[in-house]
Amino acid sequence: MSTVDQELRVGLVGYAFMGAAHSQAWRTVNRVYDLPVRARMALVCGRDAAKVADAADRLGWDGYTTDWRDLVGRDDIDVVDVCTPGDSHAEIAIAALTAGKHVLCEKPLANTVAEARAMAAAATTAQAAGVRSMCGFNYRRVPAVTMMRDLVAAGRLGVIRHVRAAYLQDWIVDPQYPLVWRLQKDRAGSGALGDIGAHIIDLTQFVTGQRITGVSAITETFVKERPLPDMVTTGLVTVDDAAVFVARLDGGALATYEASRFATGRKNALRVEINGSLGSLVFDLERLNELEFHDASAPSTEQGFNRILVTESDHPYLSAWWPPGHIIGYEHSFTHQMRDFLAAIATGTDPAPSFADALQVQLVLDAVERSAALGSSWAEVEPALTTVAA
Amino acid sequence: MSTVDQELRVGLVGYAFMGAAHSQAWRTVNRVYDLPVRARMALVCGRDAAKVADAADRLGWDGYTTDWRDLVGRDDIDVVDVCTPGDSHAEIAIAALTAGKHVLCEKPLANTVAEARAMAAAATTAQAAGVRSMCGFNYRRVPAVTMMRDLVAAGRLGVIRHVRAAYLQDWIVDPQYPLVWRLQKDRAGSGALGDIGAHIIDLTQFVTGQRITGVSAITETFVKERPLPDMVTTGLVTVDDAAVFVARLDGGALATYEASRFATGRKNALRVEINGSLGSLVFDLERLNELEFHDASAPSTEQGFNRILVTESDHPYLSAWWPPGHIIGYEHSFTHQMRDFLAAIATGTDPAPSFADALQVQLVLDAVERSAALGSSWAEVEPALTTVAA
Amino acid sequence: MSTVDQELRVGLVGYAFMGAAHSQAWRTVNRVYDLPVRARMALVCGRDAAKVADAADRLGWDGYTTDWRDLVGRDDIDVVDVCTPGDSHAEIAIAALTAGKHVLCEKPLANTVAEARAMAAAATTAQAAGVRSMCGFNYRRVPAVTMMRDLVAAGRLGVIRHVRAAYLQDWIVDPQYPLVWRLQKDRAGSGALGDIGAHIIDLTQFVTGQRITGVSAITETFVKERPLPDMVTTGLVTVDDAAVFVARLDGGALATYEASRFATGRKNALRVEINGSLGSLVFDLERLNELEFHDASAPSTEQGFNRILVTESDHPYLSAWWPPGHIIGYEHSFTHQMRDFLAAIATGTDPAPSFADALQVQLVLDAVERSAALGSSWAEVEPALTTVAA
Amino acid sequence: MSTVDQELRVGLVGYAFMGAAHSQAWRTVNRVYDLPVRARMALVCGRDAAKVADAADRLGWDGYTTDWRDLVGRDDIDVVDVCTPGDSHAEIAIAALTAGKHVLCEKPLANTVAEARAMAAAATTAQAAGVRSMCGFNYRRVPAVTMMRDLVAAGRLGVIRHVRAAYLQDWIVDPQYPLVWRLQKDRAGSGALGDIGAHIIDLTQFVTGQRITGVSAITETFVKERPLPDMVTTGLVTVDDAAVFVARLDGGALATYEASRFATGRKNALRVEINGSLGSLVFDLERLNELEFHDASAPSTEQGFNRILVTESDHPYLSAWWPPGHIIGYEHSFTHQMRDFLAAIATGTDPAPSFADALQVQLVLDAVERSAALGSSWAEVEPALTTVAA
Repeated sequence: MSTVDQELRVGLVGYAFMGAAHSQAWRTVNRVYDLPVRARMALVCGRDAAKVADAADRLGWDGYTTDWRDLVGRDDIDVVDVCTPGDSHAEIAIAALTAGKHVLCEKPLANTVAEARAMAAAATTAQAAGVRSMCGFNYRRVPAVTMMRDLVAAGRLGVIRHVRAAYLQDWIVDPQYPLVWRLQKDRAGSGALGDIGAHIIDLTQFVTGQRITGVSAITETFVKERPLPDMVTTGLVTVDDAAVFVARLDGGALATYEASRFATGRKNALRVEINGSLGSLVFDLERLNELEFHDASAPSTEQGFNRILVTESDHPYLSAWWPPGHIIGYEHSFTHQMRDFLAAIATGTDPAPSFADALQVQLVLDAVERSAALGSSWAEVEPALTTVAA
Repeated sequence: MSTVDQELRVGLVGYAFMGAAHSQAWRTVNRVYDLPVRARMALVCGRDAAKVADAADRLGWDGYTTDWRDLVGRDDIDVVDVCTPGDSHAEIAIAALTAGKHVLCEKPLANTVAEARAMAAAATTAQAAGVRSMCGFNYRRVPAVTMMRDLVAAGRLGVIRHVRAAYLQDWIVDPQYPLVWRLQKDRAGSGALGDIGAHIIDLTQFVTGQRITGVSAITETFVKERPLPDMVTTGLVTVDDAAVFVARLDGGALATYEASRFATGRKNALRVEINGSLGSLVFDLERLNELEFHDASAPSTEQGFNRILVTESDHPYLSAWWPPGHIIGYEHSFTHQMRDFLAAIATGTDPAPSFADALQVQLVLDAVERSAALGSSWAEVEPALTTVAA
Repeated sequence: MSTVDQELRVGLVGYAFMGAAHSQAWRTVNRVYDLPVRARMALVCGRDAAKVADAADRLGWDGYTTDWRDLVGRDDIDVVDVCTPGDSHAEIAIAALTAGKHVLCEKPLANTVAEARAMAAAATTAQAAGVRSMCGFNYRRVPAVTMMRDLVAAGRLGVIRHVRAAYLQDWIVDPQYPLVWRLQKDRAGSGALGDIGAHIIDLTQFVTGQRITGVSAITETFVKERPLPDMVTTGLVTVDDAAVFVARLDGGALATYEASRFATGRKNALRVEINGSLGSLVFDLERLNELEFHDASAPSTEQGFNRILVTESDHPYLSAWWPPGHIIGYEHSFTHQMRDFLAAIATGTDPAPSFADALQVQLVLDAVERSAALGSSWAEVEPALTTVAA
Repeated sequence: MSTVDQELRVGLVGYAFMGAAHSQAWRTVNRVYDLPVRARMALVCGRDAAKVADAADRLGWDGYTTDWRDLVGRDDIDVVDVCTPGDSHAEIAIAALTAGKHVLCEKPLANTVAEARAMAAAATTAQAAGVRSMCGFNYRRVPAVTMMRDLVAAGRLGVIRHVRAAYLQDWIVDPQYPLVWRLQKDRAGSGALGDIGAHIIDLTQFVTGQRITGVSAITETFVKERPLPDMVTTGLVTVDDAAVFVARLDGGALATYEASRFATGRKNALRVEINGSLGSLVFDLERLNELEFHDASAPSTEQGFNRILVTESDHPYLSAWWPPGHIIGYEHSFTHQMRDFLAAIATGTDPAPSFADALQVQLVLDAVERSAALGSSWAEVEPALTTVAA
């Protein structure tokens, strides 16, 4: 087994929630999967020297730095993993790509369409030099989600009629929850919309193979002012608390989307249902090892929603894990992501979702915001690629 | 017990699906509930003499007639129960009210706002003479739904933030399903929107105590031509197969609504979730004996969605039925409706939902259709009552 | 339709919980099903004249009597429906059979094996004269249960390996719950064992087509003394609060059974799982419209527990009810029972379960009690039929 | 954070399923938890040099050996982790304890009571010298299971009346599945009973704080002969395929237990329900992030089974993982186990379950086998400790 040809030295920028999740995945991926390259956890970057030193020790990185430009510029780094807030994605990722590093960038790709366009352009340029880039829509790699995509692609659902997607959390229901960076537009770009709405946009487009063409949206900030982290003064919430929209997909389906941080009792409830002319699929991230599949080609008396425990060795990504019924967790989606990213680098192919794919999600987010700003009128999603005159 | 003071002689117009459901309820209501009035199943009306005679015999009506005007005009009829398609609701109900009969009219109240306005006006006039009227939004009387309303009214959910409602069926997914009256605009008024969308509009407004103020909607007819019942020729489908919309409620909540007859595998899936600042509620008509309640005032480690089996004798309507855990079915909501209607007549009070309430639902349906017709732009719901100058 | 040839005049003995449920079924059966005979609710019997008069009026019986011997002896009664406590089943049922009345007797058939044997013998004798008898194990007629039997009979489960059955209630968890007749051995025969354990014994044998051959059992009375209904004095509880046993079935399966009135939170939780070499089935009476079916002949990645909503018109008993997804309740099992009983009488065939079938259940109950009395040692189930020398 | 005082050098014996799961846990524990000791993955042992070398490389162990005696005897090993089949547990664990190594031994502790007694004695002796030992009943460390124990210990369930436990798998339903070591008595000790039955015995005793005092059991080998791994010749299956038993607990509860590898469709379905006088708990390992809690002290109309998502930072073990709703998997129970084992060593306390606890489980297994061997007669569980005369 494991005749590893190559070591890829990874540099991670950011070591908070996402950085910790990525660290667990980098630490695990080669222990579980047999891959032609091995990731080395070389360097972690953060602004506070003491904290990043501690994170390096705790999370298992060989070294640390306080300057992402240092990390991006070093010869002994092959891969840059961007886990910072959205306002620095573009600068770091473009610099890394320009320096010839493979880049994995967390979602949403950027805080604005302009940044996302620049990043996608940089990725295209770098691609010509064999440099790979990928956006971290990790839920594509939840086995049940991959299986949904496979079933749709195999025609098992027939013509898709409906997409019903919600990503519901409740961590800011309390008006005294402080004004963290995720509630500030200049850092986060948007609120529930970009943070979790982006996930369901990407996931449903990935699963159906269809793209959203237009939306009518409402966004709302229920609690408009919150304590600053010092808990003494207050500040304005500058992002949405929730976003709801109806949409059309380019294959003819109608869709409803909802992203909220005010859905009391829902902790990480990403729920998707797809109805097609031949069947339906239901997924819930809080029970991510399960997939419900209704097959309308079965005899009428035996049709139902079949709860498949997606833990068999012939389910996507599962051959490397435990026996059937021994469930996996949230973090495994990152391990799967690292596996596919490493495999793509090793085989010289482009991983998905590309920066261009992520730009298209950004354009949907933009259409949602435009619709909401114009009193929920219809907003077309702009095309990702602009044709250039000869 | 049962010292019945009064007999109310009921005349039913229409004996198909709704007529059969109402018959079961009229037959049962006084056997289960102890009421000061007793309903007598006096007369059933249908256009085909042989068929209505058979229906009278089978369903247990004393007599029959083929002319609804005869039924409405008879002295020995006290209550008129309108179970015809929507295109005849206005004419029959107004005639009955004018003749001094108490009227129960199936939902949606009418096929157009104009008809609904006329009916509401007739109801108001009749009310002054002690004549009662009610629209058959029977799901209000599912015990779990009544309990939702009670919990919201008691403040247990705090400020309502989100309404998430879908009513999903799949009976016309097959393009060869024939063009029945429910798919014809002149008979049915609209498609999924009026038939099942009306239910979730009424139910969520009833439960939250809030009204929809505006919507952005998409409607779609996926299969535009279908076989006529002769299965030889085809005709155009003139109603929507599905309707989706986002909405604002007058208490500040955001909402998503979806009504579809193309949700493969969903048979009668009316699903509602309400999120408030202090708790959440979840209901599914296919499991109508259950209510999920998340109480955010519980200790954090013990919060969850509590699956309440709404079959205790101190739950709404349940004291008359079976011991705890012995579940009731769809038809019981009609028995509960008849109970409340009879009780209102006996006590000289006005039952709910009134025709005015049903008119307001009609105005929401109208806003949905206007929004959809104008490319999903925002449509305000018109006020039900027009102030009249002195 | 409904060209009824014959009217069968029913006399009901007992009008409490079971009597009310049977009344609802007698009232409904001919309104829903098209049958060659029509049941007339002729006479109800109870010991207290005022109460039974009131019950007759409320439940819809033509007349009443205070003497079951009068009811059994009348010429104008064709069917006797026995809904009394178990201590009077044998006397009433045998008298009725002897008088040539068709008999429906509630379960468990009797309080002792001796009584049950006498009843089965009387039924056999009466059968020769065309008199029909049936024991009221109504859960056989829950559509999902009938469907389980059909799937097993069709070989869809292969060789049955496991039966896992529990019937759990909690209505006497409170030690202050009074000493009602169901807690007195002389009236009820046994406690949870006979009342609800009998149901899961019959149901699992019905579904699997196999019979229990022996058991090792524990029974327990957790609360040994309770207030008498006067709530002043107390009395001894003389029946079991709970019974648990392991068993072997004659087809080779292992089984666990549990009946309890001390399962806090479980109201009417009859749960059965059957595992066979080719598939499994799961049923829960609190969700009686659903059946879970695991089909091990499906492709490995698509196997799961398929939640079938048993409400299609081609599911057992459902053609007469509502459209798909419109669920039925507990009481419908009785309507189905009356349908089959009436159909058997009309067609001159023997309905099931027969008194002999019910005797066999009684013999299993007896084995459970013998095992428990002998320190949980193994007890064989006695054969129902004793061969008689020529 | 992480001011680690001490490094503990771990030697792992066995690198198959359990060895891989333990490796993942050793690799993760100090990256997630802040502990006063750090585990070093020093040495792995297996009999085949090439395979163990590969395992060391893949799983991340510094070195390897083919001789467990070498591993046990080395000065640079502090902890021995025994992941071999049951027939070598006693020899390895006793040797390690004698050599002064802390020992973590997989369950069941041994293949026989005699071995288990010897191991428990060795652990007691070693304990006096500060050497720690623990048996790997990892499911105690599933957060929901720990929470169950905490709720029972806090009196929230009142007097325990019922335990209902099943551990169901289906991996040998196919008669052509080969005769692996787990189906051979000399290697595995017993079949489903010891492999998975041991888990539910330990888990329910842990949660309730009560011990099983006696059982009546049936065991069965459904498929008595299977292909040897060469798939040419066949051999006899010498262990049970399934075991079912009823039991009494020393606190007065009745219990049913079932362990089977023939429950078609059940992959790793460890299901436990506990009913007490004040509440009930339900757990299912296939949804291990959830716990259902029925609190009978709530108002009657609001009682239900509350589905708690056990992913809050104040739930057991969860503070170190992801935000609420981001679920964990099977393997995390091992990480939690390593955390508690390391913490016990560091603080000089004895971890649980001890070898004595595991011996008591062995004595229950023994009672089950004795009961089954004697025709399901009652078998008392022998006491773990024999009092010795002075």
